[in-house]
Amino acid sequence: MNGEIPPPNPSTLGTLFGVGVGPGDPELMTLKAVRTIGACPVVAYFCKRGTRGQARRIADQAIAPDQIELPMVYPVTVELPPTHPEYGRQIEAFFDESAERIAEHLAAGRSVAALNEGDPFFYGSFMHLFLRLSGRFRAEVIPGVTSMVCSASLLPRPLMLRDDVLSVIPGTLDEESLVRALTAADACVVMKLGQNLPKVRRAIATAGLAERAWYVERASMDEQRFMPFLEAPDVAPYFSQIVIPGEGKRG
Amino acid sequence: MNGEIPPPNPSTLGTLFGVGVGPGDPELMTLKAVRTIGACPVVAYFCKRGTRGQARRIADQAIAPDQIELPMVYPVTVELPPTHPEYGRQIEAFFDESAERIAEHLAAGRSVAALNEGDPFFYGSFMHLFLRLSGRFRAEVIPGVTSMVCSASLLPRPLMLRDDVLSVIPGTLDEESLVRALTAADACVVMKLGQNLPKVRRAIATAGLAERAWYVERASMDEQRFMPFLEAPDVAPYFSQIVIPGEGKRG
Repeated sequence: MNGEIPPPNPSTLGTLFGVGVGPGDPELMTLKAVRTIGACPVVAYFCKRGTRGQARRIADQAIAPDQIELPMVYPVTVELPPTHPEYGRQIEAFFDESAERIAEHLAAGRSVAALNEGDPFFYGSFMHLFLRLSGRFRAEVIPGVTSMVCSASLLPRPLMLRDDVLSVIPGTLDEESLVRALTAADACVVMKLGQNLPKVRRAIATAGLAERAWYVERASMDEQRFMPFLEAPDVAPYFSQIVIPGEGKRG
Repeated sequence: MNGEIPPPNPSTLGTLFGVGVGPGDPELMTLKAVRTIGACPVVAYFCKRGTRGQARRIADQAIAPDQIELPMVYPVTVELPPTHPEYGRQIEAFFDESAERIAEHLAAGRSVAALNEGDPFFYGSFMHLFLRLSGRFRAEVIPGVTSMVCSASLLPRPLMLRDDVLSVIPGTLDEESLVRALTAADACVVMKLGQNLPKVRRAIATAGLAERAWYVERASMDEQRFMPFLEAPDVAPYFSQIVIPGEGKRG
């Protein structure tokens, strides 16, 4: 009895699963996602105040009443720019606290399914938990259908074929970086539109790609919208995308 | 009776479904893929002579004995370079003929599920059928889990986070184009390795990315291999990949 805490026994710890639940249609969950969610005593998910969030909605049929639910409610409801110091401070503290709530379950031997829209490692919110917990606990990622390929499934032609290079671009980049990324590839997907849309629109015009581009909003959901980019609305939700299919370059 | 064939009646035609069956593990099929395959009287798939092919193997449990199977057997078993005129001629004729075999079922009102490893519009073989048939018949793509995100799920960190740009690069490009694409992005996935591996290895060294890169072979299958790129074998199968995670750039 020297006061030291014994190291945790890995065999008695729970596993952290980052479960990709796909782009929105519950039928686009994988069999493995459904099984993994059902097998974990704890189901965790990010959401905004007053909602259960998209990921929880998608997974609804896979969750049983006797499972422990762990909603992780974002502290900011109004979108501050991620560069704002107060935004950064609040959000980092929130992710720290969320990870600790999950760590308590894992340490007690209860595995946790952390739901993630789309795929966990493809700009997924799961990264905030993974980066904080994967050093202390076993962590496993269940890959999912990305909103990117779901949006592309609506196109009148394949997203990439033959030797096309694809660029996946966050709309949060500055205009010059957007133009550079758009012109460096044969096929492009611009994600995270929202308030970045006017800037992205200018960059796509500069890159000369407006006529080849398509606008997709809430792919695979009831409210799905899909149209040529030239007819896109002036205001886009954050989870809308612009998809520019390649032309089948031969290397 | 003037000898003209009446135009087909769209309401009596079958639908062509391009079904993404995911990267290899049958559990990574979506619920929608399983349901769609089961609902189609005809199931078509590409394969090499003497095998049923990966896509058919993945979908095995979703196919019932009373469904019509339409294997489309590639005419060339030895890999000729796609630039070879005889390769091009044979393969185009094969795709034409395969599309016509499917068209006969669609014209007779039988819907066809064409299986596609990964996702149909993400370098998928389905494109050969889609480009030939989507003008004549209703065609629908069921998106799937790409081998890309499946490979990335094995990484010790997310593939992309924050403002990372991702480049998806076919290993078939020439070395200079490979270097350009590798250096234009923050995260990279190089697909279609096979005999392109020595060239890709030189390009990754030139781009200074070897130490950040991971090698993945047959992700999610029993024979899966995953290791730092510096320890990768000298010979890689075509469906192996190199994955270079981003570092979480802030725009």
